[in-house]
Amino acid sequence: MDIFKLLEEYGSPLYVYDYNVLMERCNSIKKFCENLKKGLSDNILVSMHYSTKANSNPAILKAVEQSGLNVDCMSPFELMMDEKSGFSHDRILYVCNNISASEMTLVKEKNVLICLDSISQVETWGKLFPNTNIMVRINPGTIGVGHSKEVITSGKHTKFGISEKNLPLLFETANKYNLNIIGTHQHLGSLFLNDKVSDYIAGVKAGLQIVKKYFNGVKIIDLGGGFGVPYKPDEEDLDLSYVTTKLLEVLKEFVKYYPSIREFKFEPGRYIPCESGKLIGTVTAVKHENDIWWVCTDIGMNQLVRPSMYKSYHEIEVVCHSNNKKQEVTANFCGNVCESGDIIGEKRLIQLPKVGDAVIVYNAGAYGFSMASNYTGRPRPAEIMINNDDIKLIRKKETLDYLINNIIW
Amino acid sequence: MDIFKLLEEYGSPLYVYDYNVLMERCNSIKKFCENLKKGLSDNILVSMHYSTKANSNPAILKAVEQSGLNVDCMSPFELMMDEKSGFSHDRILYVCNNISASEMTLVKEKNVLICLDSISQVETWGKLFPNTNIMVRINPGTIGVGHSKEVITSGKHTKFGISEKNLPLLFETANKYNLNIIGTHQHLGSLFLNDKVSDYIAGVKAGLQIVKKYFNGVKIIDLGGGFGVPYKPDEEDLDLSYVTTKLLEVLKEFVKYYPSIREFKFEPGRYIPCESGKLIGTVTAVKHENDIWWVCTDIGMNQLVRPSMYKSYHEIEVVCHSNNKKQEVTANFCGNVCESGDIIGEKRLIQLPKVGDAVIVYNAGAYGFSMASNYTGRPRPAEIMINNDDIKLIRKKETLDYLINNIIW
Repeated sequence: MDIFKLLEEYGSPLYVYDYNVLMERCNSIKKFCENLKKGLSDNILVSMHYSTKANSNPAILKAVEQSGLNVDCMSPFELMMDEKSGFSHDRILYVCNNISASEMTLVKEKNVLICLDSISQVETWGKLFPNTNIMVRINPGTIGVGHSKEVITSGKHTKFGISEKNLPLLFETANKYNLNIIGTHQHLGSLFLNDKVSDYIAGVKAGLQIVKKYFNGVKIIDLGGGFGVPYKPDEEDLDLSYVTTKLLEVLKEFVKYYPSIREFKFEPGRYIPCESGKLIGTVTAVKHENDIWWVCTDIGMNQLVRPSMYKSYHEIEVVCHSNNKKQEVTANFCGNVCESGDIIGEKRLIQLPKVGDAVIVYNAGAYGFSMASNYTGRPRPAEIMINNDDIKLIRKKETLDYLINNIIW
Repeated sequence: MDIFKLLEEYGSPLYVYDYNVLMERCNSIKKFCENLKKGLSDNILVSMHYSTKANSNPAILKAVEQSGLNVDCMSPFELMMDEKSGFSHDRILYVCNNISASEMTLVKEKNVLICLDSISQVETWGKLFPNTNIMVRINPGTIGVGHSKEVITSGKHTKFGISEKNLPLLFETANKYNLNIIGTHQHLGSLFLNDKVSDYIAGVKAGLQIVKKYFNGVKIIDLGGGFGVPYKPDEEDLDLSYVTTKLLEVLKEFVKYYPSIREFKFEPGRYIPCESGKLIGTVTAVKHENDIWWVCTDIGMNQLVRPSMYKSYHEIEVVCHSNNKKQEVTANFCGNVCESGDIIGEKRLIQLPKVGDAVIVYNAGAYGFSMASNYTGRPRPAEIMINNDDIKLIRKKETLDYLINNIIW
């Protein structure tokens, strides 16, 4: 791709997705799903629900839909996007946290299966819709896995799920409203790679143990997501066949003693669009102050918040116009927001660019645009999808007028 | 105010501003300004530029404008909001960081004074607009002040300003394009209270020292902002008369030896709208798991990111319907985003609310709405301004349809 041409045509910065990479990841997950199914008995389904919150652009969702994967969502907006992208309601799972009664009503009207994550939410649902099917999220209490404390969603100190100790109260509440708990859910956190597979498996085991001990006749077990992708150059791809082997050891044992089980669900989010997405932008200043090189760009914490919020690492490449003099330096990358935390990368060995050169921030396909803001009044970038030679604008850049549409003067 | 009525009428969550508190803060800053001016000689101006990025709602900006304060901005959007809110161009200062050549052209066309913060940016400006006036941002190299590492904007490791060592190169660049440096700028960071006034003054001194030593004939010195407000119950209001006294000691000495000086500028941001703003919302679940009480609401990291991003403290009040049984507990507050970092407050002693009760998050008037996102597909809340008995909707809640306006299907 000619990065300078793209930036000129669609504005800078710009989210760029590669359709082939996206489909590759969808296919890896499908394969993972098939292999798991093969290892289990014929009458057990294995289904994958892509987590809409990672990236809800319909171009991404449609690709996921067409590859045969299902989807999960957690807000009316995400549900709408899933519907508009072609998912029938039986392929959507509503995995939510702390939602209102009116939101529950919407989900019920659509006949979408809901997974509730506290006794309090079960109570609200039960009052509204007695005699219905639900799934519930348990917290196995094991220490979760994740790239940052903020995304570890299991363990005693997180806000998610129902702990073992409270299960009697859960069943009492469900019985009061004659709710049928047809499935359980657990999610350990986000982004595990090969070195954490054993932690993931330990968490799966702990969850299944709880299901076996307390739940009768559950048909669906949702084991959540967390499948990681390598962000750093020294990290390796998650070995899905290794995960399959390890999971099968546990799941095969489980199904032997839990005959009602009909389906295992998984919820990969990041894994699917992350590597297909890049955020490209323009160098606006280059400075050397106090022995630190700074490559200053129009990509800041408003367009990509992960480095500021989680200290996450994103690989960054500099694309120089051909006439630059070569000079290798170690540099920090920052945006144009007046905050010191507006840093995209630190201490990167690069060829020093000039003003007007370009940068590519990799792995921006998940939790990139979806977490972007308009902080300091910057419009959110356009998004384009590249499929070989075909370039399609999939979201227009916000205009300044668009940003004031809701203001009452 | 009847919080339940407001939430019903304008939707939950909701940003609520109090006009009287806002005007009180504008007036404190005006008074500070007048007292400083009184202490200096008659031909020296002291001007206050409210920092638009703290809150750019025109209702806030118009109040600031009507109270006679000036404004600063850092993006085309903020500039547009300032213009639309009644600020003439001579009352606007463009204090930017890493902007593009086309953005510089916009600022020049409007005849708005610009403050550039690196030699690289001075070079870009100089090529475009030789023989013009500029201000430049220096980095005095002292350790900054701030509520969090992310907002300390002075010191050797931040991306802002030009250090002492590089000033010869700055002057060379300015001379090359015959740029007239009419002012300097320094900003130490955000949110200092009484216990940090001496650090602030030390930073001011260090900056003035540099101006005296290296800059000839500067007319304007911008000392930035950073004026804090108490977030925690045990913190006290910043004593502006104490700041005035301390500042005067330094400024009076400086003006004696620097006769060209005609104006001191300050850039309060947070100080002006912060305490006038509250974010109110609804309790959607109450849970007790692993000995922790959780009050779960519709206020999450998407509507107010400061607690997640900076671990900032915001005072939270629970408003219960009158028929609740009293039970005092220590609780965490969280939102409805599926991330463990989606926490608004921890370990607060409160009366335990029920689902449907309300919460008030205080000091949400600065860096609240302006940093909000649509993460997990949640519309950004409405904003209302309350002036005694008068309630005015100043921004409509986003609709789901609004959020998909820019998508190309």
